[in-house]
Amino acid sequence: MMLDDCDTWTYGQHMSKAAILSIGTELTRGELLNSNAHWLADRLVALGFTVVEHATVPDDAERIRGTLLRLADPTEDVKVIVCTGGLGPTSDDLTTAVVADALGVELTRDAASLAWIEQRFRDRGHRGIPMPAINEKQADFPAGARVLSNALGTAPGFSVQIAQTRAYFMPGVPREMKHIFDTHIVAELTDPANGLVERRTHQVHIRCFGLGESAVAERLADLDLGGAKRHPGITIGYRATFPEIEVKVLAEAEDEVAATKLAEATAAEVWRLLPDVAFGGKDETYSLYVAKLLKSSGLRVAVAESCTGGLLGKLLTDPAGSSAYVLGGVISYANSVKTGLLGVSEAVLREHGAVSEEVARAMAEGALRRTEADLAVGITGIAGPDGGSEQKPVGTVCFALANRSGATLTFTERFPGTRDFVRSYSAYYALRLFAGAAVEKLDLAKATRVHEA
Amino acid sequence: MMLDDCDTWTYGQHMSKAAILSIGTELTRGELLNSNAHWLADRLVALGFTVVEHATVPDDAERIRGTLLRLADPTEDVKVIVCTGGLGPTSDDLTTAVVADALGVELTRDAASLAWIEQRFRDRGHRGIPMPAINEKQADFPAGARVLSNALGTAPGFSVQIAQTRAYFMPGVPREMKHIFDTHIVAELTDPANGLVERRTHQVHIRCFGLGESAVAERLADLDLGGAKRHPGITIGYRATFPEIEVKVLAEAEDEVAATKLAEATAAEVWRLLPDVAFGGKDETYSLYVAKLLKSSGLRVAVAESCTGGLLGKLLTDPAGSSAYVLGGVISYANSVKTGLLGVSEAVLREHGAVSEEVARAMAEGALRRTEADLAVGITGIAGPDGGSEQKPVGTVCFALANRSGATLTFTERFPGTRDFVRSYSAYYALRLFAGAAVEKLDLAKATRVHEA
Repeated sequence: MMLDDCDTWTYGQHMSKAAILSIGTELTRGELLNSNAHWLADRLVALGFTVVEHATVPDDAERIRGTLLRLADPTEDVKVIVCTGGLGPTSDDLTTAVVADALGVELTRDAASLAWIEQRFRDRGHRGIPMPAINEKQADFPAGARVLSNALGTAPGFSVQIAQTRAYFMPGVPREMKHIFDTHIVAELTDPANGLVERRTHQVHIRCFGLGESAVAERLADLDLGGAKRHPGITIGYRATFPEIEVKVLAEAEDEVAATKLAEATAAEVWRLLPDVAFGGKDETYSLYVAKLLKSSGLRVAVAESCTGGLLGKLLTDPAGSSAYVLGGVISYANSVKTGLLGVSEAVLREHGAVSEEVARAMAEGALRRTEADLAVGITGIAGPDGGSEQKPVGTVCFALANRSGATLTFTERFPGTRDFVRSYSAYYALRLFAGAAVEKLDLAKATRVHEA
Repeated sequence: MMLDDCDTWTYGQHMSKAAILSIGTELTRGELLNSNAHWLADRLVALGFTVVEHATVPDDAERIRGTLLRLADPTEDVKVIVCTGGLGPTSDDLTTAVVADALGVELTRDAASLAWIEQRFRDRGHRGIPMPAINEKQADFPAGARVLSNALGTAPGFSVQIAQTRAYFMPGVPREMKHIFDTHIVAELTDPANGLVERRTHQVHIRCFGLGESAVAERLADLDLGGAKRHPGITIGYRATFPEIEVKVLAEAEDEVAATKLAEATAAEVWRLLPDVAFGGKDETYSLYVAKLLKSSGLRVAVAESCTGGLLGKLLTDPAGSSAYVLGGVISYANSVKTGLLGVSEAVLREHGAVSEEVARAMAEGALRRTEADLAVGITGIAGPDGGSEQKPVGTVCFALANRSGATLTFTERFPGTRDFVRSYSAYYALRLFAGAAVEKLDLAKATRVHEA
């Protein structure tokens, strides 16, 4: 099947429908954020489904049954329902019994699952306490169900056929849910023999830092795919995990090869339009990106932090193995620490004020002098909400990047936003200075250009 | 109406039903986490509703209409539907038109809303660009709707009556949604004249640090309310924002005074059962709690961080005004920084290893010596995933708390978990040491008891 042209094509029109059902009073009461539905939606979309509804209901047999049968009604044309929650051992956990009842079948005990649950109790430090009787229930499944083993917990999942719909049931614990989905369900959903997916999709993620979501979207308005502004089959999405932005390129095509090719061609265009802000793929945080650059540069870094109070150090040391390139540094929140531990002169502090490029420079150079680092960043600013002035309003942050050859670059930025915003953005900005210097191998003038590009 | 006794009482049985409808393809596709539904559920529960369903549907007229009419069907007995999303100016924004269509009424333009939207375009730095024609649509409402003004954006909300159900519509932007809900909807929902709420509830939050969720729940199993283990009308919920746990006490009663009294009496019992872990109320983070203690103690603190890499400093300086009691300190990730900036002797490092109470002690004492602080914490540990040994496995973290009178206490803990877990928990543990010392006014022996209680 060929795709229609771009003017008439809309996302999902050729795709199989899926629905997500989340079960749990802790969700409907707002005690727990429904991150499972979010994760599953992302996965189902990536596998080639269009998700037509997320329903969340309490631990209430009537509501669970009603919603399940409604979503599985043949007029809905939903190919797949993915359900989470209600598979625990307590009396609140109703899902399995409700499914059996809805299908008009008995519950049958699965010997392999029972053995697994008992084994788990023996292994998991329950100090010889035998499995409580209530856990036996977790080995019961509607007759005819396919059991989906759970290597991470006592609640196996299962799948059943409800009229023309395939329904999957998993525990609500995110780790176990993700494990069962990836281990058992993905293969079943994508097996052409099951006919569940009509179209194949491929998704590519591009992580960015340095522009807001709307500014990134504006740049991508110029996306050019073989002369067309937009290619039928391509959908661009955004996810902000401040201060990073993730661009998601979703391509839909008749088969996996075509979808992958289309997604990758589009992703290449996205990279081309965001040369100064795109830095990595899915799950590659900015910390990891900078870590990789620093590691391969062989440079060792130190920090001198005032307004960020340690956040830059924290981000630099987030990745495992960061001791290869992070030596440490000084949190010089008070002026007495700027002078005492970094050797910033009192005259400079008096003359220019603690928030000044001169002090940032003295901090960075002090960090270099007092450690064996090749490169140091100094940060001093006004994170707010108080402490601003007309000349130096809240959000004013001064940076310095110093190296051993005696070159120090300084910058002043104004970050508009809350205290958290100013601190986070400042720490990321400093990461970016390190990244620029690592790429340019200590040529700080070039490092700045990377930053300003 | 009196409540039934505890054996037969269950949450929600006497309460008015509410449902939440979230509209937006960015939600069903998993691009955006549905934090609005979570926030609204929490609010509705606190106002006295039981939330029977969250439904999330894409920007699809048929799905929006169908879900709305299903939830408003008189057999559902849903008193209130709260909807978010689809009130923007673009062709994807369908909510208003769908509601008018579902009610069989025309759209009418609201002059006050139009004037407001035009004013907003004049005011908001659009540099004299007049309001685009597409924004006019945001001043249209189903005939007979009550308009809910939006001081924070161009999308006013509205409410309509669908059969026996009151339905509220708000934009999906969280800030604007919360503003409209709190400004307009809460008063309407709680006005006895509207008869929407049958029971009144009152919720009290108690934030805890130092025990996991299940251990907190176990302690609260001993809850004693006038001789009964559990009071009819009381529901206890938990929300984990690692490593903090929030206990939510929800009381339901015939009027607000009775609900408040019941919630507060129960909360007092919760505090009594968690003397060593409960520290604050709603929105009071552990950082803020420790900040308050340090501020009132008059003590000034410094840090010497190895495995936490700056995270303790970051947490200490999160609250505005933290410069009153945080001087700063040293991130001594590398041994060369431990010796160079903190004066830890190479002999101690060699003899005991970097992760040892001796080194933690030398770090804390070095931070005191090199700053003007009254109190310093040293942290050195193995955050993992690599670097552990049989004697010092991953998760081993050594702490020292030093003061100017020369007393230094040291501790070694083993935190099981990921790198993030070990680092976060270690920084919180250090905050707790500061808190204990602040409470006990530098009597470090007592400070330890606070910690060990």
